[in-house]
Amino acid sequence: MLMRRFTLSITCPDRIGIVAAVTGFIAGHGGSVLEAAQHGDLGTGRFFLRIEVVADSLGFSASEFKERFAPLADEFDMTWNVSDSAERKRVVIFVSKEDHCLADLLYRWRSGELECDIPAVISNHEDLRAFVEWHDVAFHYVPVPGGESDKGRAFAEMERVLGAEQAETIVLARYMQIIPAEMCARHPGQIINIHHSFLPSFAGARPYHQAFDRGVKLIGATCHYVTADLDEGPIIEQDTYRIDHADGPDELRRVGREIERSVLARGLRWHLEDRVLLNGAKTIVFT
Amino acid sequence: MLMRRFTLSITCPDRIGIVAAVTGFIAGHGGSVLEAAQHGDLGTGRFFLRIEVVADSLGFSASEFKERFAPLADEFDMTWNVSDSAERKRVVIFVSKEDHCLADLLYRWRSGELECDIPAVISNHEDLRAFVEWHDVAFHYVPVPGGESDKGRAFAEMERVLGAEQAETIVLARYMQIIPAEMCARHPGQIINIHHSFLPSFAGARPYHQAFDRGVKLIGATCHYVTADLDEGPIIEQDTYRIDHADGPDELRRVGREIERSVLARGLRWHLEDRVLLNGAKTIVFT
Amino acid sequence: MLMRRFTLSITCPDRIGIVAAVTGFIAGHGGSVLEAAQHGDLGTGRFFLRIEVVADSLGFSASEFKERFAPLADEFDMTWNVSDSAERKRVVIFVSKEDHCLADLLYRWRSGELECDIPAVISNHEDLRAFVEWHDVAFHYVPVPGGESDKGRAFAEMERVLGAEQAETIVLARYMQIIPAEMCARHPGQIINIHHSFLPSFAGARPYHQAFDRGVKLIGATCHYVTADLDEGPIIEQDTYRIDHADGPDELRRVGREIERSVLARGLRWHLEDRVLLNGAKTIVFT
Amino acid sequence: MLMRRFTLSITCPDRIGIVAAVTGFIAGHGGSVLEAAQHGDLGTGRFFLRIEVVADSLGFSASEFKERFAPLADEFDMTWNVSDSAERKRVVIFVSKEDHCLADLLYRWRSGELECDIPAVISNHEDLRAFVEWHDVAFHYVPVPGGESDKGRAFAEMERVLGAEQAETIVLARYMQIIPAEMCARHPGQIINIHHSFLPSFAGARPYHQAFDRGVKLIGATCHYVTADLDEGPIIEQDTYRIDHADGPDELRRVGREIERSVLARGLRWHLEDRVLLNGAKTIVFT
Repeated sequence: MLMRRFTLSITCPDRIGIVAAVTGFIAGHGGSVLEAAQHGDLGTGRFFLRIEVVADSLGFSASEFKERFAPLADEFDMTWNVSDSAERKRVVIFVSKEDHCLADLLYRWRSGELECDIPAVISNHEDLRAFVEWHDVAFHYVPVPGGESDKGRAFAEMERVLGAEQAETIVLARYMQIIPAEMCARHPGQIINIHHSFLPSFAGARPYHQAFDRGVKLIGATCHYVTADLDEGPIIEQDTYRIDHADGPDELRRVGREIERSVLARGLRWHLEDRVLLNGAKTIVFT
Repeated sequence: MLMRRFTLSITCPDRIGIVAAVTGFIAGHGGSVLEAAQHGDLGTGRFFLRIEVVADSLGFSASEFKERFAPLADEFDMTWNVSDSAERKRVVIFVSKEDHCLADLLYRWRSGELECDIPAVISNHEDLRAFVEWHDVAFHYVPVPGGESDKGRAFAEMERVLGAEQAETIVLARYMQIIPAEMCARHPGQIINIHHSFLPSFAGARPYHQAFDRGVKLIGATCHYVTADLDEGPIIEQDTYRIDHADGPDELRRVGREIERSVLARGLRWHLEDRVLLNGAKTIVFT
Repeated sequence: MLMRRFTLSITCPDRIGIVAAVTGFIAGHGGSVLEAAQHGDLGTGRFFLRIEVVADSLGFSASEFKERFAPLADEFDMTWNVSDSAERKRVVIFVSKEDHCLADLLYRWRSGELECDIPAVISNHEDLRAFVEWHDVAFHYVPVPGGESDKGRAFAEMERVLGAEQAETIVLARYMQIIPAEMCARHPGQIINIHHSFLPSFAGARPYHQAFDRGVKLIGATCHYVTADLDEGPIIEQDTYRIDHADGPDELRRVGREIERSVLARGLRWHLEDRVLLNGAKTIVFT
Repeated sequence: MLMRRFTLSITCPDRIGIVAAVTGFIAGHGGSVLEAAQHGDLGTGRFFLRIEVVADSLGFSASEFKERFAPLADEFDMTWNVSDSAERKRVVIFVSKEDHCLADLLYRWRSGELECDIPAVISNHEDLRAFVEWHDVAFHYVPVPGGESDKGRAFAEMERVLGAEQAETIVLARYMQIIPAEMCARHPGQIINIHHSFLPSFAGARPYHQAFDRGVKLIGATCHYVTADLDEGPIIEQDTYRIDHADGPDELRRVGREIERSVLARGLRWHLEDRVLLNGAKTIVFT
């Protein structure tokens, strides 16, 4: 069990004195820093900063932190946030039939490795209900029919569940339906997908078959935020694994399941710990 | 120094009894097998076999091996070859201005790691002449002008050098000119290129800039046989290396040089040892 | 679902003609070879061979295969076996309190990735009973007291369970008791352990603390057969993962769990598929 | 070509306000920070900080930087340094007969990848003179005889060369003599060795043979600072590479050369860029 901490995440135009001002503010309130990382992006002129402070070293709550910090944030034109490790993020997982990512996330969650709440799973199939419910997690079966208006109703129902559960993060754990553009727009930087290829290679359907046909010598997986452009969202994490000519599509799928689940778990953990900051179509990841 | 060996490479339609017949032939002549590997491709129904025999365990030369083996090869409709480790392949390297792959190959060659002859280097720039000549390797400066007929004359001159040097293998060690289709056709499975991305991602120009712009978390390199379709030839070897948001294009280039040179060296070594067999647009690599 | 296959594994003194004789035998009975791999060990003069044959391509059963093959095996002084993929190996898992390896193995087993039967789990603690029983696997609580004679009774009880379950393979999935020498001797090449370090570094207790104290830059895990010499048995598989100075022992444990479970799963899968052959204190692994 | 920068490295007891004070000092002088990284070590209570400042953004030189910074350093009881990228470190390489690390370092140096001066190479053999001198680097042949007093004279001669060349860093690029304890003591944190195993496994002589005999599935290399305890110094960088049962000691050596040269090059580059801070018997590496 880690000690309670406040995590301050900042993005602003780069200029002299940002770190001095922020760390001066924290030190001025007796704040003890656990971890800090920064990055100045030369291309965009943006500055990124993430600082973890021991909550008890400050004499106030996260909301008071925000109140006191606001003038400084305004001065430097910051986009910023303070999160409190005691308030766990609420995550809803979307899944279809393949369960390797779901099983992995639920295991990590119940073993305490992923610090979040998982109140619900949404699926367009009934197959995984028993497994999910064994974890005392609500299972919502929301089929997605073919017609546009029916599809609209299905996603409206999902939005209703997300709202009721106060979900802050949505994980597509091999969910085989395309998320509508307006749903992407409502949850920017909050929907995380695992794609079973090393993007930008083999975007779209059946990536392992594409990889097999091309004869690549490594296969990979990509964890990314979802945007309206399918498979084009900001990449959070990727990894690859060596294969050879003897590995057919079934073997690639087996190896791929390994990579998918570890890449997704790392990406989600970093997201939950506020380690991922958006930089246009790319990410800054303070690991 | 490895002992002298004959390497038999075979591709043929898959059927029962191929290995029994081939190993029976070798055993019948007292041949001692050093290494053997096989693969049956379910998609194409083709069978691939590679066997290394201790040369002295057979009572005859490579050419006599071929003569005696021919009836068996006909019976099974084999495409096949016997190479003799005492007859080193002759390799000509094409290079432009970047020298990291060239320097690496020449080092491995003079240290004995790459068992081949390198009689000549061809370049469209004069920059690397002194370095190449220090290795007692001939340096041919063949500029490639813009016009089609001038370009034709340049590649004809290169073909003349290749012929004079009896080159069996051509290595494009970051050679920045496109090889004409007819030159590709004249040297099938003999021209090896290193592309500085994890293909099929980032084919074409400036792959490290493409990778930086897309925000990938790993970069890679690909060693492949050259065909008339640019960056589409059969892949021999690939590898990737982790980068992060702090790595700009210069850093990617630096990391990439590492991957390029090791991937190219591995691919070339396997080619020299007859470990790479073509399977349509893909390769079988018996490492 | 893979097609039914017989897997022939052979170890014998190296000499000319082994492969020809074996493949001749198989081809003579119309056997269709799916996969074959061989290795001649120069140091020991031993030869190793593994061949997978499509069961239906032969006109007989595995036991008849053995009967017919025996004279050839005698001729070449082989230690050998034929396994039938239709007869799944029976695996009993030993576990203490840490469940990451157990959970991973049970997931892979119920998803069909590990082709074996898992009739029982034995533990010296009650903690994991509910989880195991959810999988319809018998859970045997066998506490291991401190005194020698009590300990003897405990392991005798475990042997009784193993016998009753007809276990062929025992997996120590982070089992924190030392297996007595006589139990090791009764199950040679059948007890598989996962050690949470890159052996031979950090043998013994608390390897992650040892690794942290030494300041290594990668940590690892090792899957090996258990012999009476603790942490000295033949290594089946190993892997490493990068860490840095910011990772304390807790972080090493978290990263280590990843490596442990993937290394153990690979090692066990290769064992189940008869891909691991013993070569003295080392292994041949035909992946 | 990177812009000129001052790099401030700090180690001190951890307490509140260090970063605020240091960044306040830099910002107060108009300093533009290029890169910053920090680490608080919970075990030792020490704090580590590294900041790169654009030299031209400050109105003064490195020596004036030091003068102005000294009072702050005293206040926080810092061990600290300011280096100027315009003053390249002077590196002397020690080598015996194996040249793969030497060749690699010299290539990276002349290609501009390693920003340092290499005025001299010292060797106990004459073999590599021509290669070294081709790079316009002085070659000092200093044989190391068996007797203690002769050995003393040899190392005294080496110290003389180091002094004459004003060497700040000594790289043992597969140098096969043991450095005397007093020489280690004179150059703390300045002598870098490459050991051809994944330490602490296989310390001492012939590590690839040790690895082969143990049957490990990965081999590695370790770059570390040299102390009087052979192979026990603080580890800077390590890496591993997969091998298999078919790889004999020669193959391990070949694979090992790859790992050795890349691990040594990374370790040396980080050292030259003041990214490596000592933390007792361990290192902090701000990559």
